[in-house]
Amino acid sequence: MQAFNIVGKDVPRNDAEAKARGTALYTDDLRLPGMLFGRILRSPLAHARIKHIDVSRAAGLSGVKCVITGEDTPKIKYGNWRLFPDTQDEYPLAVDKVRFIGDEVAAVAAVDADIAEEALGLIQVEYEELPGVFDTDASTREGAPVLHDYCSTNISVNRKIQYGDIEKGFAESDYVREDTFDVHAVSHAYLEPCAALAQADQDGRITLWTSTQVPYIVQCLLASTLGMRENDIRVIKPFVGGAFGGKMELRTWEFCAALMAKKTGRPVKFTLSREEEFLAGRRRHPMRLHSRVGFKKDGTLMAKDLRIRLDGGAYNAMGPTATFLCGNFGAMLYRYPNYRFMGEHVYTNKPPASAMRGFGAPQSLYATEMQMSMAAEELGIDPVEIRLKNAQVSGDKIPDVATISSCGFIESIEKVAEMSDWKTKRKNLKPGQGIGIGCYSFISGGVFNWFNTSYPFSAAEIRAFADGTVHLLTMASDIGQGSDTALKQMLAEELGLRMEDIRITAADTAMTPQADLGTWGSRVTLMAGNAVLDAARKIKDQLFGAVSARFNLNLIYNFECKDGRVQVKLRPEKGISFGEAVAIVQRANRGEPLVVRGSYTPRDKGLVTPAFGFGSQIAEGEVDQETGQVKVKQMWTAHDSGTVINPRAVEGQLAGSIQMGLGYSLCEQFVMDGGKTLNTNFLDYKMPTALDMPPSEVAHVETYEPEGPFGAKECGEGLASPTAPAISHAVYHATGYCCKDLPITPEKILRGWKREK
Amino acid sequence: MQAFNIVGKDVPRNDAEAKARGTALYTDDLRLPGMLFGRILRSPLAHARIKHIDVSRAAGLSGVKCVITGEDTPKIKYGNWRLFPDTQDEYPLAVDKVRFIGDEVAAVAAVDADIAEEALGLIQVEYEELPGVFDTDASTREGAPVLHDYCSTNISVNRKIQYGDIEKGFAESDYVREDTFDVHAVSHAYLEPCAALAQADQDGRITLWTSTQVPYIVQCLLASTLGMRENDIRVIKPFVGGAFGGKMELRTWEFCAALMAKKTGRPVKFTLSREEEFLAGRRRHPMRLHSRVGFKKDGTLMAKDLRIRLDGGAYNAMGPTATFLCGNFGAMLYRYPNYRFMGEHVYTNKPPASAMRGFGAPQSLYATEMQMSMAAEELGIDPVEIRLKNAQVSGDKIPDVATISSCGFIESIEKVAEMSDWKTKRKNLKPGQGIGIGCYSFISGGVFNWFNTSYPFSAAEIRAFADGTVHLLTMASDIGQGSDTALKQMLAEELGLRMEDIRITAADTAMTPQADLGTWGSRVTLMAGNAVLDAARKIKDQLFGAVSARFNLNLIYNFECKDGRVQVKLRPEKGISFGEAVAIVQRANRGEPLVVRGSYTPRDKGLVTPAFGFGSQIAEGEVDQETGQVKVKQMWTAHDSGTVINPRAVEGQLAGSIQMGLGYSLCEQFVMDGGKTLNTNFLDYKMPTALDMPPSEVAHVETYEPEGPFGAKECGEGLASPTAPAISHAVYHATGYCCKDLPITPEKILRGWKREK
Repeated sequence: MQAFNIVGKDVPRNDAEAKARGTALYTDDLRLPGMLFGRILRSPLAHARIKHIDVSRAAGLSGVKCVITGEDTPKIKYGNWRLFPDTQDEYPLAVDKVRFIGDEVAAVAAVDADIAEEALGLIQVEYEELPGVFDTDASTREGAPVLHDYCSTNISVNRKIQYGDIEKGFAESDYVREDTFDVHAVSHAYLEPCAALAQADQDGRITLWTSTQVPYIVQCLLASTLGMRENDIRVIKPFVGGAFGGKMELRTWEFCAALMAKKTGRPVKFTLSREEEFLAGRRRHPMRLHSRVGFKKDGTLMAKDLRIRLDGGAYNAMGPTATFLCGNFGAMLYRYPNYRFMGEHVYTNKPPASAMRGFGAPQSLYATEMQMSMAAEELGIDPVEIRLKNAQVSGDKIPDVATISSCGFIESIEKVAEMSDWKTKRKNLKPGQGIGIGCYSFISGGVFNWFNTSYPFSAAEIRAFADGTVHLLTMASDIGQGSDTALKQMLAEELGLRMEDIRITAADTAMTPQADLGTWGSRVTLMAGNAVLDAARKIKDQLFGAVSARFNLNLIYNFECKDGRVQVKLRPEKGISFGEAVAIVQRANRGEPLVVRGSYTPRDKGLVTPAFGFGSQIAEGEVDQETGQVKVKQMWTAHDSGTVINPRAVEGQLAGSIQMGLGYSLCEQFVMDGGKTLNTNFLDYKMPTALDMPPSEVAHVETYEPEGPFGAKECGEGLASPTAPAISHAVYHATGYCCKDLPITPEKILRGWKREK
Repeated sequence: MQAFNIVGKDVPRNDAEAKARGTALYTDDLRLPGMLFGRILRSPLAHARIKHIDVSRAAGLSGVKCVITGEDTPKIKYGNWRLFPDTQDEYPLAVDKVRFIGDEVAAVAAVDADIAEEALGLIQVEYEELPGVFDTDASTREGAPVLHDYCSTNISVNRKIQYGDIEKGFAESDYVREDTFDVHAVSHAYLEPCAALAQADQDGRITLWTSTQVPYIVQCLLASTLGMRENDIRVIKPFVGGAFGGKMELRTWEFCAALMAKKTGRPVKFTLSREEEFLAGRRRHPMRLHSRVGFKKDGTLMAKDLRIRLDGGAYNAMGPTATFLCGNFGAMLYRYPNYRFMGEHVYTNKPPASAMRGFGAPQSLYATEMQMSMAAEELGIDPVEIRLKNAQVSGDKIPDVATISSCGFIESIEKVAEMSDWKTKRKNLKPGQGIGIGCYSFISGGVFNWFNTSYPFSAAEIRAFADGTVHLLTMASDIGQGSDTALKQMLAEELGLRMEDIRITAADTAMTPQADLGTWGSRVTLMAGNAVLDAARKIKDQLFGAVSARFNLNLIYNFECKDGRVQVKLRPEKGISFGEAVAIVQRANRGEPLVVRGSYTPRDKGLVTPAFGFGSQIAEGEVDQETGQVKVKQMWTAHDSGTVINPRAVEGQLAGSIQMGLGYSLCEQFVMDGGKTLNTNFLDYKMPTALDMPPSEVAHVETYEPEGPFGAKECGEGLASPTAPAISHAVYHATGYCCKDLPITPEKILRGWKREK
C-alpha cells in the first residue's frame, strides 16, 4: 500500500460548518426579487384520458400570475435514455392522458404559495377514467390496458445476458433450487424535498437552481423539452439535502419553473411538500425475481437462470438501467460458469420507480444472497464457506459485460466472519437468536453512454496561483456524500498541498468545465477523481519544467510536489515553493495564468463499470417469540472500496446504508390501495431513526484499484445491499423462516416460524 | 471604413430589462442567512491623534455582534500604487491618527442597521486635536502640520514632463499669456451608494460582493491588508449603479465587512448613506493650475509651461495618476514644440480626492482650452481657426510619453463648427448671448503598470458549443456604461453570430479569467475588447481547420465566420454551421469542449495609453443680465472615438458627460467649512437634472484606431472635459467675463461682466 499524506486521512467535510451553522443555502432558501411560488396540480386518477381542462377560474384568482397545462408546453417527451429516444416517454405536464395518481396535470405560479395552492382547486379537469393495472401480472395479462401508445404492450424494455451453456450447467448440477422473490418499493426519503427556482434573462436564457444530482442532464433535457439550446440553460446545484437516486432526472417542477419564468418574466420557485414526495415521488423498483441456481454437492456453483420483472410504474424513468444492472448484479459476487438473465421493465399505473441507492443491486442481491445462504443451509455447508468457495476474484470476467479488476471479496468474507466470531455464534445461539450474512458487489460508475453525451464523462479544471493556492472547478455534484471534500483531498495529495490551499467550485453548468454525468452509480470518486488527477498531472508537468529551468538541471532528474514545494525527488534542496513555481510558469507565458483541464472517460471497460467494489456484512439479531419483532443487535461490515479516501466519510456512508437496509428489510413500505399511496408522511411511512441503529463495526479491506484515483473505487451504494439478506438470513437462523417477500414483518415471521421456540 | 454586421449598430443593452424590471440585484439587495449590518464610526475632527478608544459600551449593546478599531486590524497600509509601496498611505481603520472629517475610526456589525448606528454613539474616542490644513497654500507653507510620518512635507508625489527648449520657445513667442486657474471638487454622485457584503467560509476564505469598478484590485488589496492570500479572496461585482472613478480602490467598508465576517462567522453587509458619500466620499481633485503659453502672432503655439498643485485631501488615493495625467493632458490637443510640466500632489485635511471621470483631464483641459480661446480672442483670430492651426494629428509625439495614432481632431473641430453655424453665430449673437468651444483628448486605458499586476491587463475566455452558442468570460466590469454589451457585440461580429448566441459572465475574480485591471481610464472597450478578439481568433483557427478537414480543401483557401456559418470565403457553399464546426473540433478532441483564452497587454505604447480619443464641443448660451443665470441653449459635439461599437451607448455617454459638465461648470460644488463638507445631500448639492439638459446634437467622426478592436477607442470620459470650457467660453462671448475659478456662478458673472448689456 502506498503511503499518502491526505488521502486516507479523516478530513472534516468542506460543507460541515455551513451546514452546522445554517448558512448553507438549499434551493428553497433562495429568494429573488419578484419571485413567484409554484404549485402542481396532480391527477387524482390512476389512468384516465384528459377531455378538457378549464384554467380560467384559477387564472382569474387575484395573485395568480401564470397557469399552464400540457397545451402550453411544446409537448416534447423526455427521459434519461437519450441514446434510445424511443424510451423517452414522459411529458413535463400530461398531454391527453394521466397514468398514475399524482401524475402532473397543470401548474400555477402566484405571488405566494397559499394562493397558488388555492388556485389548484379552481382548475377544472374533465377526465375519462380508464382501467388501471397495478402490478406486473395484471399489466402483462392478455388484454390489459396499455399505458403508452408508442409501445404495443406494457413491457417497455427488456434486457438479456447469457453466457456458458445454461442447460448443460443445470444438467451437471447435483442440487438445483428455484425461488421467487418479491421485493418492494421504498422511498428515498431525502430530508430536502425537491425544489427548483428558475429565472429568465432578457434573451430568454434560463438559470435554474435545483436540488439535483445531475445538473448536466437537467440542463440538456430541459433544453430539449423547452425547444431551447442547451447552453441557453444554466443549471446550478445549491446545497442538496440528500438524493439517493431520487433526483437524477429532469422533473416537472424544473420544467414548469423554467417555462413560467419565461412566460412571466419573474423568477418562479417550486418546493414539493413531503406529501407530494411520498404520493408521487420516485421510489425503488418493486420486482419479482425468479431465480434457479444449480450447485455441485460440494457447493460449487454450476448455473444460474434469473428472470425478473421490474414494476416500473407509469414511466421508464431510470428503469432501463435498473433492468440491465439487475442482470449484471445477478452475475456478480460468485463465479457462475453458466448464466442467463432476462429482465423486463413493465409499466403499471403507479408512481414511476427509478434509480435508488444500489440501483438494482439490493433487489438482485437479495435473491442471490438468500439463495446462497439457503443452498448452504440445505447442502450442509457453512454459508461463509460456500461463499468463499465460489467468490469472484480479480481477473474474473462476465463475458461481454465486465471484467473484475481489483477484488477484495474473499478477504471481506474472511474478515467479517472473524470480526463477528461467526463460527462460534452459528453453533451456539439460542432459538430466536440468529446470525446471518450478506455480501455485495457494486459498480464505480457506469461506462455505457445511455445519455449519449458528447463530452467527457467527467472533467476538471485547475487554476494554480502564485500565492500557493489552486482553484478546482468541476461539474461533479456533492449531494451530501462528501465528494467535494474527497476531490480536494485527491488534488491536495497529488500537488503536495494542504486542504486549505484548495478552493473548489462545483456543479454549475455554465461555469464549471463541460461536463459531468452527475452523481449516481457511485461514479464521482473514481470518475471526477480521475479527471482531477489528469489535470493535476498536467499542472505538475509545467511546474517541473519551471524548476528544471530555474536550477538548470540535468534532464534525468525526476521531481515531486511535496509539502507545498516543487523539488527534485532525491534532492529536495533543489526546489522552490509551489507558488514560486507557478509564478515562473506564469512569467514565462507573459502573465497568462496557469490553467489546465483534465478529463476522464472510461474506455475498454465493457458495458458496466471500470471497477467493482465488494464487501460482506454479518448481522446478529434476536426475534421476539411473542411479537415477531426483530431486534438487530450488531452489524459487522468488511468492505473493499479500494483505497479509502476519507475514512470518516466512508463510515458515514456505511451508517446510512445500514439505516436504509434496516428500513428496507424490516419496516419501510408504501401502503398502496390500487394505484394510490396511502402512507404519505413520516408518521405512517416507518423509517428507522437514529435510536433504532444497532452497534456497528467496520473494517476496510483495502485493495488498490488500478483504474481508480489513488486506487479508490465505490463505497456509497454497494453497502445498501447486504443488510437486508444478512438480517433475513439471521431471521432464518433464528426462526427457520426464509423471507421471500420483503419487508420481513413480524406477522410474516410469526406465520413462518419453523424452529423450536 | 469596414462594413460590420453588429459592431456600429444600436444594440439594446444586456442589462436593460433587468434594470427596467427591478430584477437587477445590486449589492445592497443581497441577503444571506444570519447577515449582520455594519456601520462606520467616522472622525468628527479634521486632524487629531487618537489617544484612546473605548468600545465596551458599544460591544455590550444587545444585538451588536462585533466592534473593531484599527487595533483589531493587522495595521497594513494599502493604496492602488502597488508598484511604489511608499505611496500606500491609508489604513482601513485609523491607526494613531485621523486626517479628515469622516476618516474611518471604528466599525460595528449588528443584527440590524439601527442597532449598529446606535452602537456607534456608544463608542468613546479620546482625541488630541491637531492643527489642520485645508488648502494647498496652507499645506505647503513653512511650518505647516505634516499629515503623514512617512513624508517630510505634505507634497506626497511630484511628476515632471519636459521636452523641447521651453525658454527658447517663450523667447521666440510674440504673445505670451499667463493664467492661474482654480478648479474645484465635485462629487461622482453615483446613484448607488457604496456597499459591500462579505461572507467567510470554514477555511476562512472570503467572498465579497461589492459595488466596485475594480474587482481584481479589491481582491489583491483586501488580501494584503488582511494578511491573506489573494486567491483566498473572491470578489464579485453585482450590478453597479454608477461609479465614475469613485469606486476604483479598496475601501474601508470592504475591509471591515471581510474582517468582521471572519470574526463573527456571519455575513456582514455595509451600505453607505448618501450623507456619508457626500461627507467623506472620494471627489474630483481641486487644483490650482498656473499656465504660461507662448504664441506667434499668427496663432502658432511656441511653448507651454504648466505648473499644477492637486489638493489631494488626506490620502494619495489615485492622486499620483491624476498628477501625471494632468501633465500628459496639458501636452495634448495642440502641438507644443516646447513643453514643461510640473505637478505636485498635496495633502490637506480634507476627504481624499481621487479618480473621477476624466481623471485629470477636465482640470487640465479647462486651463488649456480657456487659454486657447482667450489667446485667440486677444490675437484677433477665430478660436476655431487657432485650434485648427495647432491641432495634433496622427503620428504626433509627446516625447518619452506617448505617440498619437488615430486622430480625427481636426475633423471634429470642422464638423462641430459646421453643425453649430459657428462663424455666423460668432458675429451675430446679441449681448448676453454667446457661443463657445471646448475640445478634448482622452486616453483609451493606461499602459503604465502602477498596480504592478503579474497578469495580462485584460483577459477573455471563450467556450464554444455545438448548439451554436458561445460563452464569454471576462473579468471586465460593467458599471453601467454598457461594456458587457459592447464586448458581446465585438465577439458576435468576429464569430459571425447574433447577440443572442452569446452568454457573458463578468467580474467575478474566482470564476472569470485572470485578470483585468478594472474599469477606469476608458480602458474596457479597447483592452477587454482586444482580449476578446484574441480569443475569438483562436476559436476561428480551430473552426477553420475543422471545415478544411471536413471538405478536404486545398490549403490556399481562406475562411470566414459569417451568419452563423463557418465557410470558405469565396465559396460559401463549402461551409457548415458554427455549431457543427464546433462539434467536429470537439469530436476530434474526444469530447473535450472547445475552450480558448485570449488576453491583451499593451506593449511599446509609451507611458500613457495605446490610443487617444479626440473631440470638440460647442455650446450656445444666454446669460440673464439681471440675475447672471446661464442658460445653455444648445450643445453640438463631434467626437472621434474610432469605430463606434454601439452608437446608442455612446450617445448615452455623451448625454451623461454633458450633464456632468453642466454641473461642473455652473452649479456643483462642495461647500466647505475648513475640513467640513456642509452640503451632504442632494438638496444642498446642486446637480443638473434631466429638466436642465440642453438640446444636444452629435456627430461621430469615425477614424480607425489600429490598436483598437475593430478600430474602436474611448468614448466614456473624454467628453467629460469640453463642456466646461465651451460654456465658459460662451459666457465670455456673452459677457466678456473669463472665469478662472470654477464654478461659473451668477455672482461671479455679474461681478465680472464686461460687455455692453
